Amino acid sequence: MFQLYQFPLCPYSRKVRLQLEEKSIAYAVVRESPWERRDEFLDMNPSGQTPVLADATLGLTLIDSKAIGEYLEETVERAPMIPGNVAARAEVRRLVAYFDEKFHGDVVGPLLHERAIKRIVHRLSPDAGVLRNAMKAANDHLDYIDYLVASRRWIAGPLLSLADLACAAHLSVADYLGGIDWRGHDETRQWYSGMKSRRSLRTILADRMELVSPPEHYEKPDF
Amino acid sequence: MFQLYQFPLCPYSRKVRLQLEEKSIAYAVVRESPWERRDEFLDMNPSGQTPVLADATLGLTLIDSKAIGEYLEETVERAPMIPGNVAARAEVRRLVAYFDEKFHGDVVGPLLHERAIKRIVHRLSPDAGVLRNAMKAANDHLDYIDYLVASRRWIAGPLLSLADLACAAHLSVADYLGGIDWRGHDETRQWYSGMKSRRSLRTILADRMELVSPPEHYEKPDF
Repeated sequence: MFQLYQFPLCPYSRKVRLQLEEKSIAYAVVRESPWERRDEFLDMNPSGQTPVLADATLGLTLIDSKAIGEYLEETVERAPMIPGNVAARAEVRRLVAYFDEKFHGDVVGPLLHERAIKRIVHRLSPDAGVLRNAMKAANDHLDYIDYLVASRRWIAGPLLSLADLACAAHLSVADYLGGIDWRGHDETRQWYSGMKSRRSLRTILADRMELVSPPEHYEKPDF
Repeated sequence: MFQLYQFPLCPYSRKVRLQLEEKSIAYAVVRESPWERRDEFLDMNPSGQTPVLADATLGLTLIDSKAIGEYLEETVERAPMIPGNVAARAEVRRLVAYFDEKFHGDVVGPLLHERAIKRIVHRLSPDAGVLRNAMKAANDHLDYIDYLVASRRWIAGPLLSLADLACAAHLSVADYLGGIDWRGHDETRQWYSGMKSRRSLRTILADRMELVSPPEHYEKPDF
């Protein structure tokens, strides 16, 4: 069975977990706090980042959420998460990169640093200016997600895909950290409500990070 | 024919060009300066970043270097750049992510900003402290590349792969910007000398960026 090295608010680990859940692949969660730079973990992954998906029995260590995602698609056919023809598959991957890089860089990364890492590791208060910028950026990104789901059944097209999982992963971490103002984003809210009704996301929303609590609406399908 | 929207020092565009060259896929280069935020380019790619690979005849627009890379592998079989079994393919993708994210974040991004973008766009001088940190980080990363190519024929294993192209793309930009001290890195130097003897990389090394000149050794296979 797979072991997934992760921490509850790692968006990239959430993306991999959602894919494992959607594809009904068995796995066990192993808590890893990358900021502790544990020797055994660095031996496994020199870059020191979560997630790592390992199978000790097979001697297999998979590193980087995109490499893990492609591996899971190549080895488990059921519930394809990069579906469609070559152009549709490119669109899924474009949007996964958009959430992993732009949305993370502008919103999730700063929120995670200010509201969780600084508190847990450094016992420091968040910088109000950084939080304000992240929440403003979140609003702009939600406009784009509104546009996507207004014109398509799912984020990348007619089928559920890794783009939905990536969006839900990053958005759920930002929402946990109080960084999302849902007002004026009915399209995204409706799509996210649908995602919250899936067993895959519900499993993850039940997780809690030490010292940091989510807002009251966080787990509710109606919010 | 494909049009590749890029600028001469964009490492992600270099990676795509290397793949197009290795696979003998015809393409035309279109100069794009993402910092100008040209309306027509933003319409094509809302994230505003290079590279974009388009085929106007087919109405196809491919965005994000990883999505482009996977697309080219899925559509053109010759000269496979993600070769081997599923585990080998995961190792290629792990290392591509390592160069695209870690090596870029620590080395190429800061050098590009300080030595090119600041000069071209803002007419400002580089920050000596940032440059020093980037060059120090480059040295650590080259230690890791030394280790990889000392134990393997190519960066990711026995075969040339997208990991070699990603490494050459980022390393060549850092080298153009004078950020690489080659002393003490004979393994990486030997591997890079081999890469420089390939037509694919030679084509790219002939490119020049306005206002910024590379060091004398930049194009030489013996350096």
